[in-house]
Amino acid sequence: MRDSDTGLSLGAWIASVQERVERRLEACLPGAGETPARLHEAMRYAVLGGGKRVRPLLAFAAGEMAGAPLAVLEHAGAAVELIHAYSLVHDDLPCMDDDVLRRGKPTVHVAYDEATALLVGDALQSQAFETLANSGAAPADALAMVGCLARASGSRGMAGGQAIDLASVGSRIARAQLEHMHRLKTGALLTASVMLGALAAGNVTGATEQALLAYARAVGLAFQVVDDILDVETDTVTLGKTAGKDAMQDKPTYVSILGLAESKALAEDLRREAHAALEPLAGRARRLGELADFIVLRKH
Amino acid sequence: MRDSDTGLSLGAWIASVQERVERRLEACLPGAGETPARLHEAMRYAVLGGGKRVRPLLAFAAGEMAGAPLAVLEHAGAAVELIHAYSLVHDDLPCMDDDVLRRGKPTVHVAYDEATALLVGDALQSQAFETLANSGAAPADALAMVGCLARASGSRGMAGGQAIDLASVGSRIARAQLEHMHRLKTGALLTASVMLGALAAGNVTGATEQALLAYARAVGLAFQVVDDILDVETDTVTLGKTAGKDAMQDKPTYVSILGLAESKALAEDLRREAHAALEPLAGRARRLGELADFIVLRKH
Repeated sequence: MRDSDTGLSLGAWIASVQERVERRLEACLPGAGETPARLHEAMRYAVLGGGKRVRPLLAFAAGEMAGAPLAVLEHAGAAVELIHAYSLVHDDLPCMDDDVLRRGKPTVHVAYDEATALLVGDALQSQAFETLANSGAAPADALAMVGCLARASGSRGMAGGQAIDLASVGSRIARAQLEHMHRLKTGALLTASVMLGALAAGNVTGATEQALLAYARAVGLAFQVVDDILDVETDTVTLGKTAGKDAMQDKPTYVSILGLAESKALAEDLRREAHAALEPLAGRARRLGELADFIVLRKH
Repeated sequence: MRDSDTGLSLGAWIASVQERVERRLEACLPGAGETPARLHEAMRYAVLGGGKRVRPLLAFAAGEMAGAPLAVLEHAGAAVELIHAYSLVHDDLPCMDDDVLRRGKPTVHVAYDEATALLVGDALQSQAFETLANSGAAPADALAMVGCLARASGSRGMAGGQAIDLASVGSRIARAQLEHMHRLKTGALLTASVMLGALAAGNVTGATEQALLAYARAVGLAFQVVDDILDVETDTVTLGKTAGKDAMQDKPTYVSILGLAESKALAEDLRREAHAALEPLAGRARRLGELADFIVLRKH
């Protein structure tokens, strides 16, 4: 990042990253008028103008610390957001969570149709890897980013976590199993976001990598614990997705297993753990620390 | 390829490539016992032990000509087959073609369930890019392969062709539109197969690239014309998938637009066009020529 950006307040920095990523997403997605127009329109509907862009923020914060070029971070941030957006479109399908509201709008299969939603997700995943291939990073770094994002997305990462999530509906699982599920379902991609930022710089040492991985593990789990808390404490309008969904679908959550008070204490412990993980990096990791707070203290 | 392989008969060469690709697919897919076991079992069910492996054969034939290392071709062939397998699993879903038979076995959503089939396709796509990232090719070549496969799979390639296909059901479309659809739906990935083989060698000249692209365009379209012919002329057991499906679903095909005799003449024209495209490459492209014949003259 340029020096001018590192002096920004967190809010201004977040807005600046969100705008950069939005512009990169705009540019890498085909135009809504390009054939097949319905598919391209639906892809843009699924991706643009919504979401907190938490994953790109993590990639930029790690990349800022490691000295990665801004243009490469824009591609990395867009790529991980494309994977995230595809996963939401597929998760919302009737054969999965069957949800009608996402980011305050009708889900893709409601606004379009199921077949289009399926293809939107499929095409967004391809677009993510195409975006990494065009990142402008040194080929070895770009290839490492492809491997990192692919592993995090696949059956040993996000897709595997989804499969475990589906199998857990209606069953009593232990806290360790719940944690394992979330480490795959949301943790893998959040961790990949941090590591993509570091890989974009191409010069990360083993010690820094270990610190970032420890940070990402804590933040990734904290993100899910807070998600579970918000699902019971916040209304649908504020969330932009159906509130109370987990209990309705009889899904095990941190709140259902630990209760609300203990879940909040866990989120706070994880926030401290994230900060502790950053200590070896001294002042260089300020944004990452601020993001840990942002993720745990968010209200939607 | 090693000299010993170039002296093989076409049949023996095909069997040897199929075996190499099968072993690579076996190795890159997680074991059926690995958590989440149901997902991993279904991924292996979708990929292993079936199909003609036409795409890997094209990658190997082009790679053989260009002098690509065998290990890199195994990864390239496996990657393109993973993309093909994912597309079949998703195409067979109820919201798409709703088919129950594939490669002579129940489709994945029938053998398992819809949600699992969705995740199988998603995870296989990630696995394809992970496999390319691990191909052992020089980073710049591997990255070019990632870009090539991602473009061919996405909304400007295979997924886009699927969207046009869905929109064309029950409508009268002109031959030019049908060709456009197939150039995306099947042609893009077949072309990518040829180009991945060439990229695996890392030293393909502009003239060779142009010849390969012209060859791939002809073979890609021929493949689909023959598919349409087989759909009306061959029984379900021989095909390993439901015969007569296109007419049943009122899908425009070469046979429905041109009639059977003219479709056969077109396939033969395209076979000749493929051979003509190879002429600048002289004897170096023998396997590619043989594969054009294999694809057009196949019986299932």
